[in-house]
Amino acid sequence: MSFLKRNINCGELRDTDVSRKVVLNGWAATVRNLGGLIFVDMRDRYGITQVIFEPEFNPELAEKAKEIRSEFVLWVEGEVRLRSNPNQVIPTGLIEVVASNFGIINKAELPPFPIEDGIETGEETKLKYRYLDLRRPELQRKFIIRNKLYQIVHQYYHDNNFLEVETPVLMKSTPEGARDFLVPSRINKGKFYALPQSPQIFKQILMISGFDRYMQIVKCFRDEDLRSDRQPEFTQVDVEMSFIDRDDIISVTEGLFVKVWKEILGLDIQSPIRRMSYAEAMSSYGSDKPDLRFGMEINHLSSGLMSTEFKVFQDIVAANGLIASIKVTNGASLSRKIIDELTEFAKKYGAKGLAWIKISNGEISSPISKFLTEEQMEFIIRSNDAKDGDLILISSDKRNRALTILGALRLEVARRQGIFEKVKNNFEFLWVVDFPLFEYDEEAGRYFAMHHPFTSPMEEDFHLLDTNPGEVRAKAYDIVCNGAEIGGGSIRIHDNVIQQKMFDKLGLSESEIDEKFGFLIKALKYGAPPHGGIALGLDRIVMILSGTDNIRDVIAFPKTTSGLSLMDGSPSEVELSQLNELGIDLFRKTE
Amino acid sequence: MSFLKRNINCGELRDTDVSRKVVLNGWAATVRNLGGLIFVDMRDRYGITQVIFEPEFNPELAEKAKEIRSEFVLWVEGEVRLRSNPNQVIPTGLIEVVASNFGIINKAELPPFPIEDGIETGEETKLKYRYLDLRRPELQRKFIIRNKLYQIVHQYYHDNNFLEVETPVLMKSTPEGARDFLVPSRINKGKFYALPQSPQIFKQILMISGFDRYMQIVKCFRDEDLRSDRQPEFTQVDVEMSFIDRDDIISVTEGLFVKVWKEILGLDIQSPIRRMSYAEAMSSYGSDKPDLRFGMEINHLSSGLMSTEFKVFQDIVAANGLIASIKVTNGASLSRKIIDELTEFAKKYGAKGLAWIKISNGEISSPISKFLTEEQMEFIIRSNDAKDGDLILISSDKRNRALTILGALRLEVARRQGIFEKVKNNFEFLWVVDFPLFEYDEEAGRYFAMHHPFTSPMEEDFHLLDTNPGEVRAKAYDIVCNGAEIGGGSIRIHDNVIQQKMFDKLGLSESEIDEKFGFLIKALKYGAPPHGGIALGLDRIVMILSGTDNIRDVIAFPKTTSGLSLMDGSPSEVELSQLNELGIDLFRKTE
Repeated sequence: MSFLKRNINCGELRDTDVSRKVVLNGWAATVRNLGGLIFVDMRDRYGITQVIFEPEFNPELAEKAKEIRSEFVLWVEGEVRLRSNPNQVIPTGLIEVVASNFGIINKAELPPFPIEDGIETGEETKLKYRYLDLRRPELQRKFIIRNKLYQIVHQYYHDNNFLEVETPVLMKSTPEGARDFLVPSRINKGKFYALPQSPQIFKQILMISGFDRYMQIVKCFRDEDLRSDRQPEFTQVDVEMSFIDRDDIISVTEGLFVKVWKEILGLDIQSPIRRMSYAEAMSSYGSDKPDLRFGMEINHLSSGLMSTEFKVFQDIVAANGLIASIKVTNGASLSRKIIDELTEFAKKYGAKGLAWIKISNGEISSPISKFLTEEQMEFIIRSNDAKDGDLILISSDKRNRALTILGALRLEVARRQGIFEKVKNNFEFLWVVDFPLFEYDEEAGRYFAMHHPFTSPMEEDFHLLDTNPGEVRAKAYDIVCNGAEIGGGSIRIHDNVIQQKMFDKLGLSESEIDEKFGFLIKALKYGAPPHGGIALGLDRIVMILSGTDNIRDVIAFPKTTSGLSLMDGSPSEVELSQLNELGIDLFRKTE
Repeated sequence: MSFLKRNINCGELRDTDVSRKVVLNGWAATVRNLGGLIFVDMRDRYGITQVIFEPEFNPELAEKAKEIRSEFVLWVEGEVRLRSNPNQVIPTGLIEVVASNFGIINKAELPPFPIEDGIETGEETKLKYRYLDLRRPELQRKFIIRNKLYQIVHQYYHDNNFLEVETPVLMKSTPEGARDFLVPSRINKGKFYALPQSPQIFKQILMISGFDRYMQIVKCFRDEDLRSDRQPEFTQVDVEMSFIDRDDIISVTEGLFVKVWKEILGLDIQSPIRRMSYAEAMSSYGSDKPDLRFGMEINHLSSGLMSTEFKVFQDIVAANGLIASIKVTNGASLSRKIIDELTEFAKKYGAKGLAWIKISNGEISSPISKFLTEEQMEFIIRSNDAKDGDLILISSDKRNRALTILGALRLEVARRQGIFEKVKNNFEFLWVVDFPLFEYDEEAGRYFAMHHPFTSPMEEDFHLLDTNPGEVRAKAYDIVCNGAEIGGGSIRIHDNVIQQKMFDKLGLSESEIDEKFGFLIKALKYGAPPHGGIALGLDRIVMILSGTDNIRDVIAFPKTTSGLSLMDGSPSEVELSQLNELGIDLFRKTE
């Protein structure tokens, strides 16, 4: 099947091209027949150009053009002329091409949904026909943004003397955190490779190798139960530097974001980006990734309620818990039903209940007012700077739980009040720093590394490692944008004795340490430089840049939350001979 | 452990920096104590700077400096001065830094091999201590070249309007060619993902999606028995374009190689690159990837030997086989033993024997001379343009086998004669075009796709598809450099009927086609543009650019030929709980 090759694409022609002879290739986006006059909007990645077949000018051609249907692939030869009714919305809207010849390169069946923006088709259908969904301009724009991001990232780190190095996809399984995807080895039967959850150890090895500055845009894998914003494979911008401290990484990373926001969105990010300690973020926003596009901070109330006679509060105060609140501006108008919904919402985060205070037409109403003195009520209102028409939501609980509940409520209230919609074009960046080194898992009864076990403790907290590990702060940092964590990193341990101690604290036995991380401990003995780095969530960054909440909008061939690719039907059953070769068998349930 | 951060790296200082106060960070590459005067060569990725500790200037410091051992990580503060005995070989050789202060940032055990170029250490040890091997400048240089290549590739395709799109690593298993690596799905027990052997189908889907021009630097995987020049994971530059023909892809690809050779090696590649049909390459060089850095072409002899009475040749002529030869210039001096070795070598390629003719001091000697007339002997000598001192090696066999034998002998002779060593700095590029669409597998008794089943046949050969598939030529092309295939591609089938027919010809049943490729056939029905592309072997290109024959020199963390990573010990056994979660079991042998 031959065709006349284009000499111009469908997004290029302007009014200065009038009278030009051109050849276009593309898809028939829309076909209209107005009394024999046939209009075809030809579409390609670059834009849309209106083509017209005129029976007066060429009756045979116009007759043949009647065959054209939506999504047919065409070549069209013709001459550019001004449109009598220009379309000011698209860049090619001033002109049209009068066809003098054309051919159907390939036909198309009727697509199961229209190839246009803003369609209501269910996601399952769109994923199954991903090749058609990806033709829609709003989706293509997101991948054009994604491509721009790749280019800026490569260029930026190259300009800053980083070397791109590829780390292995087939590596060792070292489950400490999320589950690994495993790959059975055929040559070494009974053994398995794992897909990397991150190239963490390899980038540290590269620093020990003297590569000095490393970066890679790299696929990572986690076999977790998928949430709607997670994918089993995801992409990170992976960075590591030697002979540096935290501020070096922060400043290199900020430089990238400034460049990306400027070049892709034309916006200036305020730099240096604000920093906030983990402690402050939790205390004021109930989150380690606060959304700073709006206020509604948490107000701590315990100090003014020490002498309360309200039993619930008393118990909390006695147990060193926290009483705190957020103010919902103009929230007094919220119905009892909505407050009940918020209470249910809070319970998902472990709340036993939710106290509230409404100020409406000068009247205070609250289920707990009878337990509070006038002074205490006034203290709460003053602490929240609440005015007539406002609502105060109060949580009293163990400190962290109370903060988490209020942090979640803050976002839920913002969602319900349309605040996110109002601030959707704002970008608030934040560094969260001074994370705890460990978090205690009550169920497992042991400490886990909050970031990962290679994160360096702060020197000034070394002495707490043995006595009070929960208080040790890490040289770890996250970068947050609009309440989403878009990157995280740390200064790593470069001293093998401290690394060994860290593994000890995590409850790994000597043989486990040796088995899983022996080669890293060994490498650290041969002259490891001080080093640290960061990993940025590329998918998440593209989501923010392109204004979508759906991660499947920014991944060309995504999986569903059940890990399925609906287009090609993977995962799928394989032939028995393949399994035999790998020396594995499907598990037969014993019951 | 704190340290004074560098303000300059170890490769930067020049004689214009004399008297500058600097801080260096790096590794002690060599330490020499010359009567109390301590010299340390400080090394980092950027170079080497000599540091001197002078007891006269600072006795305490010089005393402390005695602790420094090879590969210790140091910070050194000092002043730049001219060296009394400059080293003209390295860019920093004119100066040294007189230490005024220093610290040991990290100690190092004695490395198992010296960190320097040209060491003889066994590969196993080097792979186990990969982090130390990677410190050696000759290895780092290769990764710096590899990084440059990445940058040029990204930039070049971006400048040419390509979009980088990531295709999935977890995809569907469609074994048709090499073996897939499989990944068991935990959420969908009993089902498996496969790692991509190439993103072939996805890049075609992207063309059907209207992305127009796609590129990606992407990891691919093949679970094959590894040869020394293969790795289970390898990297390709993957490219696809729409609305193009073969010449478009060839010209875009040539542009890349011209740029790469210019920017990395400073060399001008002759463009357009020469093209040769597959038929000619086989006929003249006995290879589909001829090394054109030297001659020694194959000379066809059958035509002059039609009436031979030599039984061996008679049979070949009668069976439509081929008698052909290569000339080994100055080969008459080769001993009988070496000729025997060449005969054994030829047998590996299926030869039954190897005839030869020596011309030495005007005398002709040959085991077959008694079977040939004087005219026939003269014909052979003339056809080979053989002079006194030369050797002619003759193969007579089925056509393809005779050519393959002579092609292999040509390379073996070149190796033995030191020709490769002489031409190692030459670069001869070649496009091999017009490949056959199919190759017949005698064992399987059926045709296989020579490239892959998505390759378009040539229009002019369509009519042969049913009658004589072996003669159908494909719109396929390989790019070859110095006898290595560094890329291959094709124009793809964009018509679903032809694609279906292609699968038929390959003996796939309708249900197999549907099961494995149904989604592609379906996608082709919704308006597929004409498209084609190429995949370039990035590892191989880096090998050629950096002048190594060892693929493990250009992959940061390579596997052995047994698929092992000696550094981290992968693949490894995993915990039973991991297998249980995946619903798989290790195979218990029944015998």
